[in-house]
Amino acid sequence: MASGRLSIDLNAIAANWRSLNARTDVETAAVVKADGYGLGSARVAQALAEAGVRRFFVASAEEGAALRQSLGEGPEISVFSGHMAGDTSLIRQAQLTPMINSLDQLLRHLDALPGHGFGIQLDSGMNRLGLEPEEWAAIREIALEQRPRLIMSHLACADMPDHPMNRAQLACFTQMTQGVDVPRSLAATGGILLGREYHFELTRPGIGLYGGLPFEAAMPVVRLDIPVIQTRQLAIGESVGYAAAWTAARVSKIATIAAGYADGLIRAMGPQAQLWHGGQALPVVGRVSMDMIGVDVTDLPQTPPSLQLLGPDQGVDQLAACAGTIGYEILTSLGARYHKAIV
Amino acid sequence: MASGRLSIDLNAIAANWRSLNARTDVETAAVVKADGYGLGSARVAQALAEAGVRRFFVASAEEGAALRQSLGEGPEISVFSGHMAGDTSLIRQAQLTPMINSLDQLLRHLDALPGHGFGIQLDSGMNRLGLEPEEWAAIREIALEQRPRLIMSHLACADMPDHPMNRAQLACFTQMTQGVDVPRSLAATGGILLGREYHFELTRPGIGLYGGLPFEAAMPVVRLDIPVIQTRQLAIGESVGYAAAWTAARVSKIATIAAGYADGLIRAMGPQAQLWHGGQALPVVGRVSMDMIGVDVTDLPQTPPSLQLLGPDQGVDQLAACAGTIGYEILTSLGARYHKAIV
Repeated sequence: MASGRLSIDLNAIAANWRSLNARTDVETAAVVKADGYGLGSARVAQALAEAGVRRFFVASAEEGAALRQSLGEGPEISVFSGHMAGDTSLIRQAQLTPMINSLDQLLRHLDALPGHGFGIQLDSGMNRLGLEPEEWAAIREIALEQRPRLIMSHLACADMPDHPMNRAQLACFTQMTQGVDVPRSLAATGGILLGREYHFELTRPGIGLYGGLPFEAAMPVVRLDIPVIQTRQLAIGESVGYAAAWTAARVSKIATIAAGYADGLIRAMGPQAQLWHGGQALPVVGRVSMDMIGVDVTDLPQTPPSLQLLGPDQGVDQLAACAGTIGYEILTSLGARYHKAIV
Repeated sequence: MASGRLSIDLNAIAANWRSLNARTDVETAAVVKADGYGLGSARVAQALAEAGVRRFFVASAEEGAALRQSLGEGPEISVFSGHMAGDTSLIRQAQLTPMINSLDQLLRHLDALPGHGFGIQLDSGMNRLGLEPEEWAAIREIALEQRPRLIMSHLACADMPDHPMNRAQLACFTQMTQGVDVPRSLAATGGILLGREYHFELTRPGIGLYGGLPFEAAMPVVRLDIPVIQTRQLAIGESVGYAAAWTAARVSKIATIAAGYADGLIRAMGPQAQLWHGGQALPVVGRVSMDMIGVDVTDLPQTPPSLQLLGPDQGVDQLAACAGTIGYEILTSLGARYHKAIV
């Protein structure tokens, strides 16, 4: 059993959704793109549908089609990348709602699937996806005549509450949607926490559902336990791993554990990261290999059969900090080789 | 079609194997762990079996069992993590050859599967996997009586030909295997390139098969083309993406492309990385998002439907350098959402 065990707490995901839902007076959707932030979009979305979610967001039509298989008819599935060339049959067959990003996409959609529901994505300053204010002004009347199901935009700096971009984007989005008779959405997790004026008629949390910042009150969702393959004693001066990058400064006991960067444990975390057992931090030694990591277990009286990388002692955001990244990347990188356990 | 297209050249993998095989006078195996370095162990191993590979290496018994399904009976499948608790039935059913790492594992194997083939893994200085010299000395006779199929060790610094660890490990392995009547293996890709005295009776290349350093003569194996979702004009001073991290210093045209760190494009590559089109380098602008990346296409007369991240202009090792990592991590991180095309 040289595979880590990844435990996924679906009840915690549902609880996080309820908790974010309770912070607004409007509908709360759920973002389950990137295979449910790496945790399995089918099971995540089913748990959220049971909790009351009626609208889901994914990145691509392919993701949407897979999700429709899992959810069956009923819930709305919206696609952030909109209606791209080649997407038409997936959008029609899986009853997806493309979030139209550009004039090109609008024309493609109205031409290929007249009468098929769609949403509109506006750019309020992030310059990533969506219609620019001038484009929108030019086609707004035509687009609104087609009764879009949602008009949305996305915040660039919602995890930095004091960043001036937030108010600027709020003002821009408000101005662009003045007088429309269509539900509007600006807030993902960070936007929900910015307060009521960011909520409009629908919010669409992502990372907060999965236990990540900026939702500090989130319940943790994942645990990752990695089995020990073997341990060995090292004399002072002996080195461990590739490039002999770590050298024992004391007589040491080193465990080799069975996961590495091929399991999505970002190689850059290197010796900043720690494993955990019984509340005790155990430093990574040497380079993270493809399938293995060395851990200093000298201070443990006995080496247990596995060590913990994610859990109550170290969450996704703490681990992300060790790798110089964000919790989102820790989650979406979780590898395919783990035994996944739903708890 | 908001998904990248990953082209995998199986003929190049086979050619790389033949080229490495031609550098030695001994048997050449192939390492296909981590799902064939991210490219699909089933198809990679089948292509290599056709090229003449008779012995494959994987990281875990689970990987070995999956590979046996693809390869059928015949080829030997060796497991680097050896015989771990819980592995017995997989090892028996899939006819795997565990590379025993410790006295514990040897006892487990002989007890659970007497007469079932195994190999021995020795630690010659990397301090990661394998029996220490003293352990080996104590059990060598008993182990050899059981007729192991291979005795191996692994080099820590083979990609640094002048590193003193190489000669030290060679001397240690030679000394530990003096007089044994069993095939020996020390060299992976780097070890093959170190020269004949490192080859013993079997080599087992990994990264070189997949086109990565230190095998500079390798044929490239992967191409990755990422579709453009939309483009927009930016005025001087407008910013792009999360945290508004990039600001236009000229009137710019920015393309948003449909892949991000959830597709294994390491977030740390950020603005060091470049996309390519027609031999022209196009800088990443702003932060890599989960499903999207901004690219400066101002200097292109026309924006094509997709931009290239991996290909003739930028290989896995060049991209790795942008992310501060190694080509191995670029390969094993390649995500699940790509359309995979075998060429």
